[in-house]
Amino acid sequence: MNDPAVPVRAVDVIRKKRDGQELSRAEIESFVRGYTSGEIPDYQASAWLMAALIRGLTRAETAALTEAMLRSGEVLDLSEFPACKVDKHSTGGVGDKTSLVLAPVAAAGGLVVPMISGRGLGHTGGTLDKLESIPGFNVNLPVPEFRRVLRACGCAMIGQTAEIAPADRKLYALRDVTGTVESPYLICASIMSKKLAEGIDGLVLDVKTGSGAFMKKEEDAAFLAELMVETGERMGKRVVALITDMDQPLGNYVGNSLEVVEVLETLRGHGPDDLPELCLELAGWMFHVGDDSITVSQGRSLAEKLIKSGQALEKFRQMVELQGGDVRVIDDPSRLPRARRTMEVLSASKGYVTAIACEAVGTACVILGGGREKKEDSVDPAVGLILHKKVGDPIRAGEPLCTIHYNSESRAQRAQKLIEEGYHISEAPPAKARPLVHRVIQRSGESN
Amino acid sequence: MNDPAVPVRAVDVIRKKRDGQELSRAEIESFVRGYTSGEIPDYQASAWLMAALIRGLTRAETAALTEAMLRSGEVLDLSEFPACKVDKHSTGGVGDKTSLVLAPVAAAGGLVVPMISGRGLGHTGGTLDKLESIPGFNVNLPVPEFRRVLRACGCAMIGQTAEIAPADRKLYALRDVTGTVESPYLICASIMSKKLAEGIDGLVLDVKTGSGAFMKKEEDAAFLAELMVETGERMGKRVVALITDMDQPLGNYVGNSLEVVEVLETLRGHGPDDLPELCLELAGWMFHVGDDSITVSQGRSLAEKLIKSGQALEKFRQMVELQGGDVRVIDDPSRLPRARRTMEVLSASKGYVTAIACEAVGTACVILGGGREKKEDSVDPAVGLILHKKVGDPIRAGEPLCTIHYNSESRAQRAQKLIEEGYHISEAPPAKARPLVHRVIQRSGESN
Repeated sequence: MNDPAVPVRAVDVIRKKRDGQELSRAEIESFVRGYTSGEIPDYQASAWLMAALIRGLTRAETAALTEAMLRSGEVLDLSEFPACKVDKHSTGGVGDKTSLVLAPVAAAGGLVVPMISGRGLGHTGGTLDKLESIPGFNVNLPVPEFRRVLRACGCAMIGQTAEIAPADRKLYALRDVTGTVESPYLICASIMSKKLAEGIDGLVLDVKTGSGAFMKKEEDAAFLAELMVETGERMGKRVVALITDMDQPLGNYVGNSLEVVEVLETLRGHGPDDLPELCLELAGWMFHVGDDSITVSQGRSLAEKLIKSGQALEKFRQMVELQGGDVRVIDDPSRLPRARRTMEVLSASKGYVTAIACEAVGTACVILGGGREKKEDSVDPAVGLILHKKVGDPIRAGEPLCTIHYNSESRAQRAQKLIEEGYHISEAPPAKARPLVHRVIQRSGESN
Repeated sequence: MNDPAVPVRAVDVIRKKRDGQELSRAEIESFVRGYTSGEIPDYQASAWLMAALIRGLTRAETAALTEAMLRSGEVLDLSEFPACKVDKHSTGGVGDKTSLVLAPVAAAGGLVVPMISGRGLGHTGGTLDKLESIPGFNVNLPVPEFRRVLRACGCAMIGQTAEIAPADRKLYALRDVTGTVESPYLICASIMSKKLAEGIDGLVLDVKTGSGAFMKKEEDAAFLAELMVETGERMGKRVVALITDMDQPLGNYVGNSLEVVEVLETLRGHGPDDLPELCLELAGWMFHVGDDSITVSQGRSLAEKLIKSGQALEKFRQMVELQGGDVRVIDDPSRLPRARRTMEVLSASKGYVTAIACEAVGTACVILGGGREKKEDSVDPAVGLILHKKVGDPIRAGEPLCTIHYNSESRAQRAQKLIEEGYHISEAPPAKARPLVHRVIQRSGESN
């Protein structure tokens, strides 16, 4: 049946998945190989993607797809580094700047962090866009340069290179225009193929849930998390997933250079309540994944110490310098790009903030120019929002909810409207705060 | 929502169908128009086709799709003909040559039969291939010529022209390579868009079921039949569907020129048991659909009379002449292309024929060269099979089951093997013969 000498016909693979049957590893490999090489045309791939989205994939199929996509390109060999290689990946949110904190914290604690990140997608921000708001910071390092930075400081943050998982790049572009994005199986294969191509030993996944996440429902986030953990474990990696809250923006700053400001505050041991807390939790898990003799709580303490001592900030400074960025911004954030104007959005009533429509805040930032409405748009690093009130905070009528940093009056007005509508204010305080970490998913879907 | 001024995004139409929602007429029209014009690429159409195949279409969506495909090209206006325009369409089988009998019978009875047919598909034969075995017969008439033949003799048989339902031609080719053929909704839209473009008033559908049909299960055939009847009725046509047996070949002759021989015998009032019987039944329904004051049994009698009197054969002769064919074959079928060699397939045992694997017989004919293994293959009109035994017939060991007409020894051997395996012979006779007409489906799924 799966004799490698007998070529697999693409149409038979499509029909089999269409009928809800399980594909063999050889069939999946042959399909991915054929598509990457151009032998299988887009129209066959999109029919297959739709069948896979609707019928779903088994765990074995998901692992085979991930591996075939991973193998479509180069897999980095980082065996020259004796330390454990651990990365963190977030499924995307609003104000989620944890990567910029975690890479230097983990590297300062002795891990190697070969982080390959993405750009903003939809209403969510992107790590690369945030880094590029630091003047001169180069995210497009070729692989040898990436290794050099890793060797010099233990962490490096770049964008996807042409060598990494080319099948994913092709499939992702196709999924975007064929209504086949929203499949946990395809999302899992896309994320995991890229992450596993980094040559890592372990991975901490931050799967967001809530109004600002792609997975609004916790059960969907948990399902994706379990898939990714199992897929990673099948490939011999230590993987853990935290389901974390994205029902309101993370931290108070949303927008590229504004988020770098908050990252610097957090690396100095300041920052708002939620962002440092989530960073410590994720760092604790990164240290635990890197060395299971370290408990998560010991890892947290280590991260706290590395921040308090300034070692994490020092690591960040090294990385910025090695990647060509202007290190003067670290001590003088006013050197970051700044919007020409600011305006305050005031509360119309008094009471308590009971909810913030998180996707609306992300969309407001995109409208200001801080994200892309179309793929080819460029990003304005300076614009964004500073939230003065988060869920649970008391507010007086006329008190500012948020400050908008903008360069275009008409865009600011559209953003203002979204923010005004996005803040929900009631007389009574909200019932109970959502926890920052909803749950942790470890091997075989074991949850704690 | 469906403001025609707001362009419908293809990806939104795909996502809506993917999620099992009903598409509006405007959305379907916009999608078909966009695909026909080339604005919507193949990869979006194939994703949509897969979603439509898996999720299914509602009756309203099926009608809208059929109409959009019909409107993608020219709809013949045959209002110049005062007589009722009635066609017959079969979903395809083995040895199914009824069209060649019915067109002249119906025309001899006063109907106008503007028949646009197809070629062999898979293991099934095609009307055009059969007609082309008559030397000189031209199935590629342009529309004005088609009208001229219709005017002169009341029936004409041609292939699909570039003007008719171009959306179907594009979609059909795409479905073939993307695993999206086997959807009753898409099959219905494909068949009905082409048939309704003929400018007919009524249509008799012959939906085949059994081992030699595309729809092996009767319930699948009935479902498709109901869909097509309802779709035709929604568009103001009189449509009836007969679910007929294709569990063994129809008639005794399989292969293009051999089938023309059997057609001529049938038009002379001879022929085997089943073929004339099915032709009379279908003709009865064609006359009834053309004029509901004629009962089906009156229509049958009329057909019988037209055959007995030689008027039907005379009509066939006229059509052959008008379409450029050599009319001498009608009185001297030995002028039809003949294979250079014949061989008999003998029965290894004695007993009764209890089943004939009908698809295998069709495949044997394709292997001999009588059909196409690939689209671009040409067809050998001379080759085929003459079955001497049908289901229920007694047989002695060593008695011939079938004669193979062939031009290639190696092909004949492969065909022989299929035939030997395809004939099932038992000591006891088969329980009960399957009826030729399983059921009749009329408006609103009413069945009798």
